[in-house]
Amino acid sequence: MAAQASPGVSVKPGPTVSIDALSRLCSDAFVSAGMSADDAAIGAHVLSMTDGWGVFTHGSKALRGYVRRLYAGGLNPHGSPRIAAEGGAWAVVDGDSSLGMVTSSFAMKTAIEKARSSGIGYVGVRNSCHFGAAGYYAWLAADAGFIGMSMANDIPSVAAPGSRGAITGSNPLAYAVPAGRYQPMLLDMSVATVAGGKVYAARERGESIPSTWLIGPNGLPTDDATSYPESATLSPAAGHKGYGIALLIETLAGLLSGAASRWGIRSWLGDDPSLPTGHGAAFLAIDCATIAGEAAFIARVEELIDEVHNAPTADGADRIYVPGEIEWEKHAAALRDGIHLPSDVMASVTEAAQICGLELDSYFFETSHSSETSHSS
Amino acid sequence: MAAQASPGVSVKPGPTVSIDALSRLCSDAFVSAGMSADDAAIGAHVLSMTDGWGVFTHGSKALRGYVRRLYAGGLNPHGSPRIAAEGGAWAVVDGDSSLGMVTSSFAMKTAIEKARSSGIGYVGVRNSCHFGAAGYYAWLAADAGFIGMSMANDIPSVAAPGSRGAITGSNPLAYAVPAGRYQPMLLDMSVATVAGGKVYAARERGESIPSTWLIGPNGLPTDDATSYPESATLSPAAGHKGYGIALLIETLAGLLSGAASRWGIRSWLGDDPSLPTGHGAAFLAIDCATIAGEAAFIARVEELIDEVHNAPTADGADRIYVPGEIEWEKHAAALRDGIHLPSDVMASVTEAAQICGLELDSYFFETSHSSETSHSS
Repeated sequence: MAAQASPGVSVKPGPTVSIDALSRLCSDAFVSAGMSADDAAIGAHVLSMTDGWGVFTHGSKALRGYVRRLYAGGLNPHGSPRIAAEGGAWAVVDGDSSLGMVTSSFAMKTAIEKARSSGIGYVGVRNSCHFGAAGYYAWLAADAGFIGMSMANDIPSVAAPGSRGAITGSNPLAYAVPAGRYQPMLLDMSVATVAGGKVYAARERGESIPSTWLIGPNGLPTDDATSYPESATLSPAAGHKGYGIALLIETLAGLLSGAASRWGIRSWLGDDPSLPTGHGAAFLAIDCATIAGEAAFIARVEELIDEVHNAPTADGADRIYVPGEIEWEKHAAALRDGIHLPSDVMASVTEAAQICGLELDSYFFETSHSSETSHSS
Repeated sequence: MAAQASPGVSVKPGPTVSIDALSRLCSDAFVSAGMSADDAAIGAHVLSMTDGWGVFTHGSKALRGYVRRLYAGGLNPHGSPRIAAEGGAWAVVDGDSSLGMVTSSFAMKTAIEKARSSGIGYVGVRNSCHFGAAGYYAWLAADAGFIGMSMANDIPSVAAPGSRGAITGSNPLAYAVPAGRYQPMLLDMSVATVAGGKVYAARERGESIPSTWLIGPNGLPTDDATSYPESATLSPAAGHKGYGIALLIETLAGLLSGAASRWGIRSWLGDDPSLPTGHGAAFLAIDCATIAGEAAFIARVEELIDEVHNAPTADGADRIYVPGEIEWEKHAAALRDGIHLPSDVMASVTEAAQICGLELDSYFFETSHSSETSHSS
């Protein structure tokens, strides 16, 4: 599993891939790791769509970690998420340690069906794993005409006000709202002030960071990134607000679903890949068309977006975006021009391909905007 | 309606009131403004409980504004909130321009009944007004054994990233979770970095403020409070995160319920009190006992709280609180010792009593910790 090149597989620093080909690559990797073609396609759609949005931290970069766990047994390639308990407008799904994307897509579709019959649906998930970008599942609901919300818990990495060290996970929260002639409004956030990757990058570059990002080993704010992640902790976004939302997510995704919680979760990246991680998640769908009337609701969302677009901008700002708009513009460009994967993603995907015995060349093409030399054999 | 003393009513700068007597005062004021005893008791319970939590910005300080609107007709003292539309797990409530507390309590109780039969319930509200502390309604659910969430829209007062001026309301969001041997976890937050009152207080004192609080007239962060609220705007908490959550709340409380939204809402304090404000709100209840098993769920919440309490504290911090813990400790002290109302609250309550023809002396008592001279007649 080391990043050692095997014959016929080489690291290309700057190649470009179409969303479809990236999806095919992810799907082939999942199949090689033992998953069914249907489940592999689900996982591949999540990862390629996420890279299409430009959210490279949560797209195919994570493929390597998932296939490691699939090969080692901590993720069950033959797992089958099932409804463990349900009522009129709710269900709890046991993920059977399947790939998080497979379980989470199943769970959101279940929430949508509950909402279709009852107006709103809640589905809690246990025995899952890292589910990638929370926004994908919220989008699944919006794509079906529903308001969607998704969230998950994770190992503690974020401080609470007054704590020395991590109390909650970075617990992602996403929502999506159907928006008629616009792409859905789509927010995908964590409860930390900034992502750990951003702190780590500053550390790698030897830069200091704003004192709002990190809580140092003594529990106080610090602008020194060198102690992260060993003894420093991410700060909660907006202090007690981010901390409070983290505990709401923990409640809905972890405690209510019967999932593992806080220190009871295993790291999907760092812990023994032969053991399940036990992550929890929660999904909500709301049938806006039935509750408000489809045309009336969509007209009001469009009007809100128009109003945001037409509002006066700050000095130096060209536009005011609604949530998700930047990601949708990147997605349109990715559909048109393909995705130029950053080098860290490319390195990770290359290693995933090695693990799975795949030949990367068949998925990628070279574009003129890559000025880097190709090391392709 | 000026703050002019009438015979027999005088401003006491430091008197103390029991929660019960404060509730009686609010109730008497609402009845004098034409409300039924039952509705008045509902409104009074919200305001006195809120002051008991020490959330003085949203308790009886607002009584003056409500009775003004009740007397002027913008709030309908004889209003009767009703279910305008409903399905298995949802309803939309038309508030009939009743006092926001009456409509919101009715709506949360409706959400609880939906959750009792379906596992989760969503209730949207239109034709409401300022509803006070969002946390009260979330607590109503937790007090009945349910997870509760409440939220509301309001006139724009918070900037978006890149905007010059307000885009969203400060849109409160609250949740409460039953917690067994502990009081419910209870978060009540707005989507702004800090409350406008805090900025205004700094302006009054001539102090500069952190540059994270306010967006100046040019749309850029400022540490100058002098232009607030005329041309400066509150900043969204954690930037795009607070802005994104504000739009989710706007969607659930405003667009989905058929309520007024953004600039279509009237200010409950500043606009013509003879006209309805049109505020929207949304309430969610989740039947945690049915979904997770009551004993199992409560045990997990208690375990989470214990873990937070036992976690290492930062330098200088004695404790790590769970959301709401500070407010519950204040509430216990208020039950024991009464509430020492701050002078701004006392001034407002005094004026409310004047409007309603009530004699304040009969509700308050003096305590030794008030060193201020009583001006009682």
